[in-house]
Amino acid sequence: MRPEALKPAGEFSEAERDAVYRAIHERRDVRSEFLPDAISDSVLTRILAAAHAAPSVGLSQPWNFILIRDKGVRAAIRAAFERANAEAQALFEGPRQAQYGKLKLQGILEAPLNICVTCDRRRGGPVVLGRTHDNDTDLYSTVCAVQNLWLAARAEGVGVGWVSILHQSDLRRILGLPDHVTPVAYLCLGKVRDLFDRPELEARGWDRRRALGSAVFQDQWGVSGSLPEG
Amino acid sequence: MRPEALKPAGEFSEAERDAVYRAIHERRDVRSEFLPDAISDSVLTRILAAAHAAPSVGLSQPWNFILIRDKGVRAAIRAAFERANAEAQALFEGPRQAQYGKLKLQGILEAPLNICVTCDRRRGGPVVLGRTHDNDTDLYSTVCAVQNLWLAARAEGVGVGWVSILHQSDLRRILGLPDHVTPVAYLCLGKVRDLFDRPELEARGWDRRRALGSAVFQDQWGVSGSLPEG
Repeated sequence: MRPEALKPAGEFSEAERDAVYRAIHERRDVRSEFLPDAISDSVLTRILAAAHAAPSVGLSQPWNFILIRDKGVRAAIRAAFERANAEAQALFEGPRQAQYGKLKLQGILEAPLNICVTCDRRRGGPVVLGRTHDNDTDLYSTVCAVQNLWLAARAEGVGVGWVSILHQSDLRRILGLPDHVTPVAYLCLGKVRDLFDRPELEARGWDRRRALGSAVFQDQWGVSGSLPEG
Repeated sequence: MRPEALKPAGEFSEAERDAVYRAIHERRDVRSEFLPDAISDSVLTRILAAAHAAPSVGLSQPWNFILIRDKGVRAAIRAAFERANAEAQALFEGPRQAQYGKLKLQGILEAPLNICVTCDRRRGGPVVLGRTHDNDTDLYSTVCAVQNLWLAARAEGVGVGWVSILHQSDLRRILGLPDHVTPVAYLCLGKVRDLFDRPELEARGWDRRRALGSAVFQDQWGVSGSLPEG
């Protein structure tokens, strides 16, 4: 018997499909383009609801969203970033080290809103459907929420930058995270007027996008097929 | 000086924004609704290009997409699922165990296409920008690609189901993955006519969605604020 909750999916019109692809292809990792304007409550609620609609292993919904507007908290995060970033720069060698030093890799203080997206490793209890054979699937669910948030933000004219150059220990201390909660993403959000028309790291000569075909295999690792070019 | 690649972002119209939210809120984890029809090359290329447009740490693009149509490969994966799923069911107790046994948790053979999305832990070399302080960020980039794929598929009328009840060792053996490549997501894809109007695990009484407000904190873990309701 078909459960009542099963309904005709309904096609997307070409315009709707194009809009989804526009968000996906025009989404950028923003570091310098944040405007100081506040994000309205209605926009923020829609963006968070989009994140909260992500798939999650066993419907465990392991994510939390810590909205950070407090300037003292953001200043502490920014200081933690500066320490970590100096460590990071020292790991590169030669001209790459100098090039790294010129990149702006965060907008923690310029962005009016920061969000730390966390994963509660205990959410859903000791045995979670679908997490029995890969314990990291709760982290993956949390990242699905991040990507939903990022695309919704793009559609709202809000830029998002993911700051990953932070010690987890600093995030735990500054934000008061319990041991069983993993900080997955530290995000900066703000309205944007301008965006890069390609990944900023490509525009600045750090690296290039790979061809899609090089990422696609057929039936086995390493077996290239002809990618349909549609 | 502004790099030439910085361009006016351009607003999304209300209709475009609604389309993005439609994809996000109508996306489902599909197990039983796959139609046998082949996915056209043009649709598949657009879906893969959407995945490939995901953000990645240091622009490392660590993902690969193994397109699996071969029935022998899919039969081997299905057998690996059956073994793992029996182990999983044994971990639940009492009525939950019986309830688990009634759930259909994969559509490996019914879906005309399976895709294993992998993460090459060596991609980008020994030091990757942004991965210096959280080694898992390459896995997170790969999940962003999965979520892009999932949303693009929804807009194309293609359902996606994520099968996580598999031993990584089985996926490595069957798909020939090198040791430095982690299988992140095993996906089943096929056209769909019907979809659940809420998460299937909710429709079937396994668990419920949480209220968004319970997931949102202000400035510190555990500090609830009033979520704007827009």
